[in-house]
Amino acid sequence: LLTQPQRDRIDVVLVSPRNPLNIGAAARAMANFGFRRLAVVAPFEAHWREAKSAVGAPQLLTNAQETATLAEAVSDCTLVIGTGTLARRKPEQRVVPLPELAPIVRDQLARGGRLALLFGSEKRGLTSEDLAHCHLLVEIPTDSRQPSMNLGQAVAVCLYEIASRISEPGAGAKDISRSSQTLCPDNPRAQLASPRGDPPATSGDLELLAGVVEATMLAANYSPAAMRKANRRDLHLLLRRMALTRRDCRRALGLFRRILWRLQHRCGPAED
Amino acid sequence: LLTQPQRDRIDVVLVSPRNPLNIGAAARAMANFGFRRLAVVAPFEAHWREAKSAVGAPQLLTNAQETATLAEAVSDCTLVIGTGTLARRKPEQRVVPLPELAPIVRDQLARGGRLALLFGSEKRGLTSEDLAHCHLLVEIPTDSRQPSMNLGQAVAVCLYEIASRISEPGAGAKDISRSSQTLCPDNPRAQLASPRGDPPATSGDLELLAGVVEATMLAANYSPAAMRKANRRDLHLLLRRMALTRRDCRRALGLFRRILWRLQHRCGPAED
Repeated sequence: LLTQPQRDRIDVVLVSPRNPLNIGAAARAMANFGFRRLAVVAPFEAHWREAKSAVGAPQLLTNAQETATLAEAVSDCTLVIGTGTLARRKPEQRVVPLPELAPIVRDQLARGGRLALLFGSEKRGLTSEDLAHCHLLVEIPTDSRQPSMNLGQAVAVCLYEIASRISEPGAGAKDISRSSQTLCPDNPRAQLASPRGDPPATSGDLELLAGVVEATMLAANYSPAAMRKANRRDLHLLLRRMALTRRDCRRALGLFRRILWRLQHRCGPAED
Repeated sequence: LLTQPQRDRIDVVLVSPRNPLNIGAAARAMANFGFRRLAVVAPFEAHWREAKSAVGAPQLLTNAQETATLAEAVSDCTLVIGTGTLARRKPEQRVVPLPELAPIVRDQLARGGRLALLFGSEKRGLTSEDLAHCHLLVEIPTDSRQPSMNLGQAVAVCLYEIASRISEPGAGAKDISRSSQTLCPDNPRAQLASPRGDPPATSGDLELLAGVVEATMLAANYSPAAMRKANRRDLHLLLRRMALTRRDCRRALGLFRRILWRLQHRCGPAED
């Protein structure tokens, strides 16, 4: 089974939750399955206070991290997993059915990573801006006539699956090593190329890199203003697909900073 | 995956539920996973009405069967499965961890049976009287520091497990045929002895038999009044452990009816 330190490397992130009962139910499900790290992004303030002060609220709710943006909430996570019904969307990330998630979680924990499991608001689910922070999406196999789950119940089902399947090598996907490598199916060498010992990049690393690349695009006059938002999203998704290590990330950051500096100072070709 | 006719042979039974929100959440989880047969035993009347009239209540809630006793609710079921936290109890039935339940459900469906999944009230869970109707108990593997799950979340987790694991031969238990036979570990021949084609006895069959056996015990002056309740419970449990077919049950019923008639009419040894 999962050890407590392993469970403490799996964060539950509620994005803009509204109903205090749902927040409480999500926290209770976490306590039921031994998870303790809850983050809440831009909650509706009155409801959030109400949820925290409810009778019998578990300690983890009082200890929850509250952030203004999703980027802050997941900045130290190396694998961000979005949840929800994707019926009306065409996601660009890989979508994994929940019963096949365990090997991916296990692999990420083995590589020293930290995971976040994202749940959107009751009304809208995760927005496309939220989804741009996700490395992959997980789908609970629900009935097409009533696909949308209650928030507290969705959290319970996901955590049950992770807590109870993680220790079964044969369950879900057939081959763990293959499964972990198809994390980026359009770039199968991405993970093979990086030595196992090198830890994966965090969301914070990727955000930093994305910021410098964006500034570079601007300085190079790469994209017209109308395309900037779409390009930013594509850049976010691309960086997550690449499965960079921290070291890859630092190198790319150094390179782009140098390029940016040159562009901004209107220098000619490098002389040094 | 489970077909709809198979899902319709799995009943969810809520025993004395109190909170209308929980009833609604249980019904919603059923709709999410494509289950439609809900029975409610001795609900708190006002709360039950409130749950049924809630905005957006799924059709299955309006169609739910309402019974005064658990015996009625499960009378046509051939495998009754109790859920709950067993931390403080020593159950006499076999306890199966939820991740290993799928092969048992699959086997029962293959044998033409009908299953009931029982959930107790929010406050007390299933009583020992309720448990006497169960062939086996299932336990959701929760954290010992917070073992007790919210009703709606427990229903969601159980139905997710059944709906998503049923089609995976390798998942959970290793060997389906062995698993189905260890349903009554202290009587491994019980299921082997009955030809596969003969359908399992329903709870209603067993109740009828138990009633006649009890009357026989009374007529034979078998048990002192103080022991009657305990004997009744043991009898209920024994009958469920035996994994009788409908035919076994009819035969035993015939025999005990004959014995009872003789006892009541104070006849000597049979002459015919």
